[in-house]
Amino acid sequence: MKKQFAVIGLGRFGGSIVKELNDQGMEVLAIDRNEEKVNEFASVATHAVMADTTDENTLRSLGIRNFDHVIVAIGDNIQSSILTTLMLVELKVAHITVKAQNDYHEKVLNKLGAHKVVHPERDMGIRIAHNIVSKNVLDYLELSDEYSIVELIAGRRVHNYSLTELDLRAKYGCNIMAIKREENIDVSPAAEEKINSGDILIVIGADSDITRMEQDLFDDDTE
Amino acid sequence: MKKQFAVIGLGRFGGSIVKELNDQGMEVLAIDRNEEKVNEFASVATHAVMADTTDENTLRSLGIRNFDHVIVAIGDNIQSSILTTLMLVELKVAHITVKAQNDYHEKVLNKLGAHKVVHPERDMGIRIAHNIVSKNVLDYLELSDEYSIVELIAGRRVHNYSLTELDLRAKYGCNIMAIKREENIDVSPAAEEKINSGDILIVIGADSDITRMEQDLFDDDTE
Ligand SMILES: Nc1ncnc2c1ncn2[C@@H]1O[C@H](COP(=O)(O)OP(=O)(O)OP(=O)(O)O)[C@@H](O)[C@H]1O
Ligand SMILES: Nc1ncnc2c1ncn2[C@@H]1O[C@H](COP(=O)(O)OP(=O)(O)OP(=O)(O)O)[C@@H](O)[C@H]1O
Ligand SMILES: [Ca+2]
Ligand SMILES: [Ca+2]
Ligand SMILES: [Ca+2]
Ligand SMILES: [Ca+2]
Repeated sequence: MKKQFAVIGLGRFGGSIVKELNDQGMEVLAIDRNEEKVNEFASVATHAVMADTTDENTLRSLGIRNFDHVIVAIGDNIQSSILTTLMLVELKVAHITVKAQNDYHEKVLNKLGAHKVVHPERDMGIRIAHNIVSKNVLDYLELSDEYSIVELIAGRRVHNYSLTELDLRAKYGCNIMAIKREENIDVSPAAEEKINSGDILIVIGADSDITRMEQDLFDDDTE
Repeated sequence: MKKQFAVIGLGRFGGSIVKELNDQGMEVLAIDRNEEKVNEFASVATHAVMADTTDENTLRSLGIRNFDHVIVAIGDNIQSSILTTLMLVELKVAHITVKAQNDYHEKVLNKLGAHKVVHPERDMGIRIAHNIVSKNVLDYLELSDEYSIVELIAGRRVHNYSLTELDLRAKYGCNIMAIKREENIDVSPAAEEKINSGDILIVIGADSDITRMEQDLFDDDTE
């Protein structure tokens, strides 16, 4: 049977979760006490209902205990977030993920029995900081403390060279796994493929090797 | 010379950027018009100053044009965010990254000349949605709307099969780019390599193909 998700609070964070779950073909119930929000998500979610989730009877009548995973994405109203979480725990919902505003809020949520507490603004701050330290790294996936996959923007130093000519594997121990050019992604680029300035290279390797390669080949000194 | 960063707005998002840049050994100026925030970051940032950044003279006297990258992390006060961005563009700051609250805000920021616009709550919502849909996906990197790289935990259904035997490329159009086993990462796994339950497979492919493969081979039905 398909997993059943419910998202409480349709702000930017909760709303984005609803959209992405829907994109992935999941069943998702969207809940907010604000009618405008509910209308906004009526066509995105499987169902959208107006309800105040701090009320236990309301939660019961929604059959919330039958959902596989409930996400509490209430932000500024910490009291609502805490009360809602308490009810969900008491109703024995299988998986409860809650957005926290700060460390104190997180502590309370953990004590109440939330299964996972997330800090979207904080975590995204860390990701953005990583991305801005180097202008050439667009995004990354940390595989371990030592290895990563990074998206690197090709500049003029690699322009018009083929993968064979660059020979990044021998020189830096790095492999190019895919090349993104405008809207297309080539997930098994040929050895004779020429790189264009502006291409985005998906590279796997050790962090120190990637940094070395980046400094040698991707740090444009014209800026 | 070390790159100079400045972060305007010390909420959760901006504050987290300041902390992470500092962790990475970068020089960072932290700015907020709220004195409490400035005091909170006095010991984290290289410098922390109280200033209203919608005032051009204030920005000039901070020497903001000499910074390599300025991040505007003002949230709810969209007018402050827009005015600050306008000033930074006029002062010709080399890189300006701005947090947007919604699509309309983003459009204005782009028109004004912001170099990058970010949506932390929305982007983290997408990440969280990915993580909760499948317990088998540990982390992922979205290459485009259609393609991703995911970290998948191998279960008993793939245990003791070699990459050749599974033939994921023919069956699902997915490539295994690396295998993580305990602390080791093999970035060019051999075709005859046998997978163990508990291994983490780094897979590249189309989202729909990855989902299909995951349902067939990674969704343990014992739960
Ligand atoms: N008790 C409640 N029951 C149902 N919905 C609630 C309750 N309390 C708050 N909400 C809803 O939660 C949503 C998110 O709340 P918040 O105040 O954090 O908005 P936001 O700042 O736009 O969120 P975000 O930071 O994710 O953008 C709002 O749409 C609000 O109506
Ligand atoms: N004109 C301005 N000059 C300097 N700082 C400003 C200005 N306007 C707002 N700020 C500061 O920006 C910070 C972030 O603003 P916001 O209202 O988004 O807080 P927040 O919701 O806590 O942020 P976050 O969503 O990142 O947690 C606040 O600390 C605020 O004092
Ligand atoms: Ca909020
Ligand atoms: Ca690392
Ligand atoms: Ca905010
Ligand atoms: Ca997607």
